[in-house]
Order: sequence, then structure tokens, then C-alpha cells
Amino acid sequence: MSLLQALNPRSVAILGASDNPIKAGGRPIDYMLRHGFAGRILPVNPKRSEVQGLAAHASLLALPQAPDAVVISLPGEEVGAAIDDCVAVGARLAVIYSSGFAELGEEGRARQADLVARARRAAGGGLRLFGPNCQGVANFATGAILNFSTMINENTPADGPVAIVSQSGAGAAILYGGLRRAGIGVRYMLSTGNEADVCASEAVRAVVEDEGIRLVVLYIETLRQGAWLAEAARLAHARGVAILAVKAGRTSAGQATASSHTGALAAEDALADAFLRQHGIPRLADFRELIDYAPLFLSQPAPRGRRVVSISNSGATCVLSADAAEECGLAMEPFDEATLAGLSRALPSYVTARNPIDMTTALLGKPQTFGDTLQALSGGAAADLVHVGFPIGGEGYDFGAFADQASRFARDTGVPIAVSVNQDWVARAFQAQGVPTFWSERAAMRGLALLAEQAQCRPQTESAGKHAGPPPAASHSTALDEPSSLDELARAGLPVMRHLVCRDADQVRSAIGTLPTPLVAKGVSAEVSHKSDHGLVRLNIREPAQALQAFVDFAATLRRLEAEDGGMLLGVQHKADFELALGAHVDAEFGVAVMVGQGGVLVEALRDVQFLVAPFTRVQARQALGRLAIAPAFAPVRGLPAVDLDAVAGMMVALGDWMLEQGGRVQSVDANPVLVARGGAAPVIVDAVVCLAREDA
Amino acid sequence: MSLLQALNPRSVAILGASDNPIKAGGRPIDYMLRHGFAGRILPVNPKRSEVQGLAAHASLLALPQAPDAVVISLPGEEVGAAIDDCVAVGARLAVIYSSGFAELGEEGRARQADLVARARRAAGGGLRLFGPNCQGVANFATGAILNFSTMINENTPADGPVAIVSQSGAGAAILYGGLRRAGIGVRYMLSTGNEADVCASEAVRAVVEDEGIRLVVLYIETLRQGAWLAEAARLAHARGVAILAVKAGRTSAGQATASSHTGALAAEDALADAFLRQHGIPRLADFRELIDYAPLFLSQPAPRGRRVVSISNSGATCVLSADAAEECGLAMEPFDEATLAGLSRALPSYVTARNPIDMTTALLGKPQTFGDTLQALSGGAAADLVHVGFPIGGEGYDFGAFADQASRFARDTGVPIAVSVNQDWVARAFQAQGVPTFWSERAAMRGLALLAEQAQCRPQTESAGKHAGPPPAASHSTALDEPSSLDELARAGLPVMRHLVCRDADQVRSAIGTLPTPLVAKGVSAEVSHKSDHGLVRLNIREPAQALQAFVDFAATLRRLEAEDGGMLLGVQHKADFELALGAHVDAEFGVAVMVGQGGVLVEALRDVQFLVAPFTRVQARQALGRLAIAPAFAPVRGLPAVDLDAVAGMMVALGDWMLEQGGRVQSVDANPVLVARGGAAPVIVDAVVCLAREDA
Repeated sequence: MSLLQALNPRSVAILGASDNPIKAGGRPIDYMLRHGFAGRILPVNPKRSEVQGLAAHASLLALPQAPDAVVISLPGEEVGAAIDDCVAVGARLAVIYSSGFAELGEEGRARQADLVARARRAAGGGLRLFGPNCQGVANFATGAILNFSTMINENTPADGPVAIVSQSGAGAAILYGGLRRAGIGVRYMLSTGNEADVCASEAVRAVVEDEGIRLVVLYIETLRQGAWLAEAARLAHARGVAILAVKAGRTSAGQATASSHTGALAAEDALADAFLRQHGIPRLADFRELIDYAPLFLSQPAPRGRRVVSISNSGATCVLSADAAEECGLAMEPFDEATLAGLSRALPSYVTARNPIDMTTALLGKPQTFGDTLQALSGGAAADLVHVGFPIGGEGYDFGAFADQASRFARDTGVPIAVSVNQDWVARAFQAQGVPTFWSERAAMRGLALLAEQAQCRPQTESAGKHAGPPPAASHSTALDEPSSLDELARAGLPVMRHLVCRDADQVRSAIGTLPTPLVAKGVSAEVSHKSDHGLVRLNIREPAQALQAFVDFAATLRRLEAEDGGMLLGVQHKADFELALGAHVDAEFGVAVMVGQGGVLVEALRDVQFLVAPFTRVQARQALGRLAIAPAFAPVRGLPAVDLDAVAGMMVALGDWMLEQGGRVQSVDANPVLVARGGAAPVIVDAVVCLAREDA
Repeated sequence: MSLLQALNPRSVAILGASDNPIKAGGRPIDYMLRHGFAGRILPVNPKRSEVQGLAAHASLLALPQAPDAVVISLPGEEVGAAIDDCVAVGARLAVIYSSGFAELGEEGRARQADLVARARRAAGGGLRLFGPNCQGVANFATGAILNFSTMINENTPADGPVAIVSQSGAGAAILYGGLRRAGIGVRYMLSTGNEADVCASEAVRAVVEDEGIRLVVLYIETLRQGAWLAEAARLAHARGVAILAVKAGRTSAGQATASSHTGALAAEDALADAFLRQHGIPRLADFRELIDYAPLFLSQPAPRGRRVVSISNSGATCVLSADAAEECGLAMEPFDEATLAGLSRALPSYVTARNPIDMTTALLGKPQTFGDTLQALSGGAAADLVHVGFPIGGEGYDFGAFADQASRFARDTGVPIAVSVNQDWVARAFQAQGVPTFWSERAAMRGLALLAEQAQCRPQTESAGKHAGPPPAASHSTALDEPSSLDELARAGLPVMRHLVCRDADQVRSAIGTLPTPLVAKGVSAEVSHKSDHGLVRLNIREPAQALQAFVDFAATLRRLEAEDGGMLLGVQHKADFELALGAHVDAEFGVAVMVGQGGVLVEALRDVQFLVAPFTRVQARQALGRLAIAPAFAPVRGLPAVDLDAVAGMMVALGDWMLEQGGRVQSVDANPVLVARGGAAPVIVDAVVCLAREDA
């Protein structure tokens, strides 16, 4: 039985059923009774014979029929036994309200793992858990409301095309309340709580299977099991369903609040960010944005590009719209000849046909001018997206007609439209025709940019095919020394500095005759990082004497540091215009993550880095490089040639693919610096640390 | 008569008075009649004897009394004569609706200048102009509504503590409508249109004199006459009045839309940005923000710092609040011992007293817990600002009590408070007690950050005193060659590379004996920029022969380029960790602008620059350096010492002060690179171009 099917139970038992409809164990019964659940409601309460007018039973095992789903509203210490009963009666879904588990720390995590272990005993792994410590789930299509949110009382349920998935119960309720107040129907409200079993990613995967769903709004604090969400994104894309996410913990302060540990938190968010981007899931800022942009995603077609045309009756709005478009990364391009010709027919002579179009008073008393202007844009040569700003309406403006024209334009042309207004009555006129309105040009333009992002970013399609799936993350790993690390990367097909390792004076002399000078000399030891800080790096070696002196000095230094002496590495010294850092690691939730950024000693100070989750394409790698703050410097400057970013992008792809192929043997790669020069010179890795999974740990 | 007095006329004549109350020449009469203007309304219309029930007159000169103010609602070509009449009758204020002036281009600009010239003939320069091409002005305290905005019909005027100043008439109306719908009283609505005479800066200066004004909301597309706004900011600061600005044209697209010319537009916005920041005028994004944040600025006290404490009944809200605080630059610090002790008394044991405070269900049925928690923060040790998030309210929450406690806390402690909610009825409970509410944590937190920005950024106080005021911007200037430029900067007290200029071989030999090697050699010519592109720069000169060869080669190159030969500069070569650029120019609207940023060949590619308007303090210079993207690299890294930013800040201050002292003689300075090293080494300017005003141009 699929998780989606489990969310459509024909019978629901409630452990801890309460006669009081405002208690957690009473609310789902009350909700199901009032909101038309056609299945059977089975209250379980050993102390009562009747609950809210329904016959109550002493235990799950004493029920007259086996329930499909069970709500567990019991003290934490009774949940384990309840799960056993669920297994015994063959329930498919248990929704655990109870707290006292992983949210309390280590001991609670063990208790939580025990719940999952018990559930796994069900035949075919057929018992799925929501929670513990969750507000429950609801299916408003069937009235199966296994949920105690008060918001269901405040806003009457209505089935519709939206699914809510939230790690936070409050978050689910905020979204539900906001969407319902906006008149939007909601089919699923799933809060996943501690996610002992079903996590938000899998819940999204389940609801996008439902053909009635057009939009999933997702709130997460920790993104788990990325593979489920990746699959959900692929299915959603194929079905034309939009997934919009809020991932809280964008900042270190937010992440410290979301979880009690602190290390590597910022990277966790950066990875989630990369993952969502790669899978065509726009990341919104907060609940308010999820609610405000839902009508846009539900009503407007998917745009074909990022070119926006803005039309307004106010010059100030035109300026603010142009600002907003540029800030949102939309292209507000000049019109081509054909469009100009069309516009000049549509517009009176005193209106300049430039983008944004300031109609001044052209629409006063002449509503068809608006429709004609839209018509002139409908060829698709000018606009992928249309913004209309009516900051002020008054006598002489026929907003009913404008709304009708706007609605028809979007429907007929497939070009989405968003309107910014300041007056309620103007907003209502557009909303009545299904045209989404916003309270500022910025908000409207951001909505259009989100639409474009969602439409353009195709989710990965190759993930499972080419590779065996994400490799396992090891809890311990061992760092290789520099020459071994460079050798690993060379075998991965990455360009590394040409080098030789010398164990004695003869090898030093031989090496310096073999490699083109100048050379760099480095002491080899996996136990010493930051070698230059310890005088274990010398540049500009040209003579055997210099190399031999370095060899003697390095050996002495390593003895003094009591570090293993792996000899001396002599490498060809390269010139560089930029030092990059290139890295990768196996992440437990996302698989292989590849990082690229400004390198050298400033890598941590500047934190100008971008992540990608492997596998990814060379185009995605190029885009990631383009998002670096340093990116503009890679272009031709003052007659100097550009940096060959394609070569760097190729290295990123190769590194990600190789890490996947290694199946977890290689846990991390830290190549820094990667020397990059303007012009034709190929990038080269001149230092690296590769860490291998440690079997014994 | 001050401009403020001129905005309080006792009699108003309307040229082009219309009997139709919805025409531009009819509206102000209708508005003044309906909204209690106690002065005399004097319609002028040669074709009518009566207008809207009032006696009409044939001309200004035929009026029974001289009007204080005149509305000019006439065709553009009649405005000049109308101004003459205003001068003749001794009017103090003319509000020109008419278009057909500078908005049309060059010829229109000449016609507009002619209007000003005519007005200047008034005794004592006593006739001030609003417009042309403006929607007019309104004083809702007196009902003197010289304005044709339809929004005055849609939202009934009510006097209050807010003044609206806008270059756009639509902007003024949007702000007026939004503020009135929010129940906020508005005293002035001033739209300045083409700003032939009175610009927005001077209008703000006028209204902050009115003791009834607490808040000025300002919309500008081009910031003119910065000195007026600087004076307004000082007066506003002294009086506890907030000025909030939207400056449109933040992006090049926006600026291209705002004006037809394109050169140096981004710099114009960057200068305006710096100017507003230095004068404690928060820059908001759009009209919506100006409207949404007005209640916060009107109701809440000025905070003493940037430390925020957040309190919520939802864990998700706590995470989003922490994210928002960090993104807004607010400090969400851990609590000190005393505050922890107080909080542990206020909060039940199951609530962890950490910031943000997740109260979970502690407030259910126990409203005083909220007041006690606020009380525990009232010592001021923990909070400069308080955010409260109630994303979900329901049974058991006494929002009337919470609102009362929040309102009292702000009043008693001087710590401002902002609340985020999702439900209308919860919002209304707080608003009823004067506590501002927002629809997201981000919006609330941004509001608190704006409050802190406005309270903390003291406007400059030294501007007019120490210096003779901003120097004039010259329309033409002459570039000095490199040694002359370096000499100018040395005289300004800035550290420049030690150097000698050689005109013959003897001077070359002498110089190389005098200066410490290695040296850099450069060909001297004011006519060649980018000298390294022409082979006119050689590094690592140690021997006389190298220097003499360079001398010969440079002379040949300059001959080939047909450029003036100013000899050869030999300078001491410096090592650098960073190349900065330091510049300054005289700007027509802002006076002296100083720029600092990443220099070298990447200066234009990276555009990592900050501006300051002189004079400014060393602290402000340090802050500007801290806003550079490269700033984190200046700190100690991997055991390397920090860059001496105080020295760089000192150079910025010295450059700005010197430019002011030069009184316009020096029009611009472009020092690039300024070499900066980690550790104790002083920064040094190794190349510069100084441009002097050209008298003959």
C-alpha cells in the first residue's frame, strides 16, 4: 500500500479518544463527524463506553473492525505498546501526537528509534508512522482528519488543489489558515513532527501522486532523505505540479534555533539551497510568501522564459517595476520592430512604446486600449511574463474590462500575468477574473520570477539511472597525504600538478632533472595540515642544492612536529590569476555534494562558495560558477582574456561523478588551491586532501 | 516668508478654475469647500462669473484681494504670463499643474528655466513654485488643498502627524490613500513634479519645521540639492522626527526608466544611498513599505541599540525570527545571568529561557506569563528591541491582555515592540492598543531594524561649520599627469609612493642612486591612460641600465602614440596583499563624494565599491570599508595579521576634507591602485589621476 493510499483510510481509530472536542484526543473525532468523513470512526478509551456520541472501546484489539489508521493521543510511555497493537491489528498508518521523543535529546532519540523498530515488524513494512510530536494529518477530500489543529475550526475545510506538508504543526496550521482565508481549497495538511518514519520529503512524494493536486507548499527546518524529494520533483514536473518550499534556518542563528548542534550548519542550509534549486523547487522566504504566491501558481500558465513586459498608468510604478524586475533577475528588454509596430497601433501617439509602458492617462474612458496593448504583446516575441501596475484607480478606469482582458490574455497566450494594486476594490475586480494581485510591484515581480524559476529549472532526470544512488556517508574517515590525494584525483580524471615524491637525495636530484623548473617543494605528511604555516612549503626551486636543502629541512621539521615523514613532493610551479577551491563530500541526506569557490587562504574568510548536489550537468556547474561573487572577474578585463570556466565546470562534473562511482569509498575531497589562469591555460589542482571511509570505525 | 508659511495660505486663487469638480481646475475648489478651508477661495476664469457657487474673476489682477497662493491650471504656454501676474499681486506660492516643460526635453527645460527667472523677480525672491507638471500640494490641517488627486475623494482627509513629499503625483496619492486607509492622519501632501524651484529636499526641510509633524515619508526618483535634505535631517533628528525615503531607480533599469540619460546613473544612486545612510534616513523599498512601517515609527520609541529578543508561541516562528533577525543585521544574543534568573521566575520550567524564547503552550490560560516575561526583559540588559510572534491564536489566548502588556512595556521601558500575526482578529487586538503588527516575522524584524537604523545613524552635524559648503561642480576639467597628481595628493596629506621624475639620462642615473630598489618605471603623459596596456610600465628595475633602457623605450612609445612626453617616473616598488581604489569627485547635488573599493584592473568588473559624502568621520569610513564584499579578507586569516583599516579610513577622511577645502579647484581624484599590506605597513598610493576644474570651459 502506498503512502498516498494510507492517507485515505476507510476507518480511523483514536487512542486516547476524548469526549471533549477541544482536547487533542477529541478534536479529530469532532472534525471527522462535522466534516463528512464517510468512513468509520473508532474511539478507543478504556474509561468510557461512549465518546462524542460514538461507541468507545477498551483497546485497539477490542475494536469491532481493524482500523486502517490510528491516531495515538497517549502519554509518550504508552506509545510503544500502542504501536505493537497497530501492528497486531494490521493498521497501515499511525499518527502519533505524543511528545517525549527525539525533541528531548539522546534518550528520546533511542525511544523514537524503538517505535520505528516496532512498526517495522508489520507485515511487508506496512505500518507507516507520522510523528511522534506531530499535529497530525488531514485529508479534506474524504474528511479523514487525524489532526488536532484549532485552525480547522477557525477556517472551514474545503477540498482543493493544494497539499500542505510541514515539519511544524504550527506551520501547517498557518498555511492552512492563510490559504483558506484566501479562498483556496486544501486537500492535504500533513505535519511530520519528529519524522521518525515518514519525513517531509516522502510526504511530498506521496501527495504529488494525487491527480487532484496542483500545488504543494512545504515547510522544513531540516531537509531529510533528499532522494524522496528528488523523485517527487521529477513526478511533479512531469505532472505540471508546482512545489514551493520554505526552508527555515537560512542563517546560522536560525539554524542554531532549529537544532541544538551548531557545527557545519551553514553548509547544511547551502546544500538544501542547492538541492532545491537543482530540482526546480523555488525557495520562498516564509509562510506569508507561500500563501501570497499560491494563487499565482494555481491560476497562471508556466512561462517560457524570463522576459517581462510591464504596463502601468503611473510613471513612478514604471520606475519601481524596472527596479524590481532587475532585482528579481527578470529581463525587461526593449521591444523589437514588430512589437513596436503593434504597440503603436494600440497606443495613442502621446504614449511612448518602451518597456515598461507608461500609459499615462491613455486608459481613461478607453478600456479597450489595454486589451489592444496586451494583444500587441501576444506574439510572444516580446514577453514571457506580463506585469501590470494599477497603483491608482478612479473614475474613468473600467477595471472589470481590464480584468477580463488580462484573464483572457493569459489563457489565450500562455503568458502569465500578475497585477500590482493599492486599492481593495481594484484588487477585487482582478481577483474576480482569476488574475492574481499583489500589494507592490516588488511582490508581483518576485512572483513572476518564481514562476519562471519553477518552470525553467527542470529537475534532474538522470539521478537513479547512471549511478547506483547516493553513496553511504561514513561516520569516520582517514585523510590521505598530498601525493596520494593528488594521485586519487588524477585517476578521477582531474588535472593535477605534475609532481614526484622523493624519499632520498638521489630521488631529489633525479626529480629536479626530470621536472621543468621552477618547482615547488612540500613536506609530505598526512598528519600536518596548513603546511606553509610550518615552513613545509618552498617556492621557486630551480637548483638541486635548493631542493636538497629543503629535503633536509623538511625532514627535521617533521621530526620536530613528531609527524610521519612521507618524504618530499616536488611539483611543477604554476602561475595563476585566481585561486579556487574545489571540494566534495558524502552527505547523509543529499548524497554527494560538490563545492566550488574562491580558494587560497581566504576561502573561509570570504565564504564565496557554491554547492551542487551530484550528479549535475556542466551547464549547472557553469551557473554555479556564475553565482560566485568573484564571477565578474573571470570575464575579459582591460584587454586580458577570460578564464576558461568550461574547464572548471568540467572538473566539477568529473569530481561529482567520480565521487558517486566510488560508492562511498571516498568520503571527501578538498582541493585548494586550484590554480586558474586567464587565457588558454588549463586549471590545475596543486594541493588536495582526499579522505577515505574508515572500515574499522 | 518661509516655505512652511507659504504652505499655509489664507487665500487661494485658482487660474483655470472649473465649475466641474472632477476637472483639475475644479477639484481644489471642491476639496477646499468640502474640507473646511477657512481662508478665501478665489476662482479665476475669464469666461465665467461664478464657479462652484463662488464669484469668479477675469484675472489675478482683477481679484478683490491679493491671494497668498495661486493654483495654475492653464495650458503650458500661458504659465509664464500667469507667473508674471503672481509676481505683480505679491503671491507667495504658485502651484503649477501645467505640463509641457522639462519632461519634454531640452526646449521644455528652457521654458521651465524661464518660469523660475520670472518668479525670481518677486520682491525678496518671495514667490515659490511647485511644479510645473505636478499634482499640487495640500495642507489638511487648514484645508488648503491646492491639489487635484482623486485619492482625496476616495479617502477623507484627516489631519495628523505625517507629511508626504513626493516627486510623483501618483506616488503622493498612493501614500496618502494607503496611510488614510490605515487610519493614519496626514497633514501635508506635497508633490513636487518637475521641481523647477522647490525640490523634494527643500519641501522636507519645510515640513519638519512644523511641530505637529512626527514622520515624513518621501518618494524621489532623483535626489536634488542634498544640502537641504541634510539640514532637514539635522532638524528632524533634533526634534525626534523620522524621515523615511523611497529612492526609486535603485537599478540601472530603474534609472534608465526614471530618466532618459544613462551615463553614471548607478553612481547617482550609490551616492544617494550613501547620503541617506549618513543622514539617518532609512531607505525603504517601495510605497508599500512606507505605508506599512508608518505605524511603527509613529507609535514606538527610538531604540538604544540593535539587540533584539524574540518571543513566540511557535517553534517555527522562532526559527524564522532568528533567520530574519540575522538577515536584518539585528543581534539576537544569549541572555545574561540576571535576565536568565528573571526569565526563569517568569516562565514555567518546561520553557527554555533562550533567545528566541519559544513559550510553547505556556500562555494558554495564563496571560500574565507574557507580561512577566516582558518584565524580565525590562532592565534593558537584554533587549533594545522586542519582537513577538503570535502566528496562531485560538482558545486560551487572551490577546487583549497581551496587547495591553505589550503596549505598557514599550511605554514604560522605551523598548520598541513589533508583533507578527496571521489572523485579522489577533492583529486588531494589538492595533487597538497601538501595538504595530505585521504579516510576517521578516516584516516585523525589518521594521525593528529600520527603527534602529533611524535612531542610531545620527545625521552629520559638522557640514556647514568647518567647510564653506559644497564646492561647485565644474562642467569641464583637465587631467594632471601622474607625478603632478601624486604631488597634489601628497600635499593633501595622503601617502604616495616615493618617486622622482627624470627628464634625461643623468636624472635617471641620479634617481636610481637615490631611491631604494626595486623600482617601478612609468612613462609620464597625461594623455595616456592605462599605461601598462601600452608597455609604459616596467617593474623590478634594479640597475641603471634597466632604467635607461626603459627611458629610451618609453620616449619612443610616446612619440609613436603622438602623446606629450613628460619624462619617466621612477618610484619605489611596494608589496601588497590587496589593491584598493580610492576616488573622489565633486557632484552637483551632493558636493564631494568619496569612493573606496577593490582596485587594480578588477575595479570595474567587481564594482565592489562604497561611497561617502564628505565630510564624514573616520568611524563612517571604517563602516564603509566594512560594507565591501572583500572586507572579511582584511581580518587576520590563517595566522596572517589584519590590514590596517584605520589608516585607509584616515586616507578617506583626509581626501574628502581636502576636496572640500579646495573649493572646487580639484574636481576629481582617481587613486588606483592603493597598495595595502597586512601587518604594520602603511597603505600607499602608487598611481593617481587628479582632475582640476578648467576655467576656460
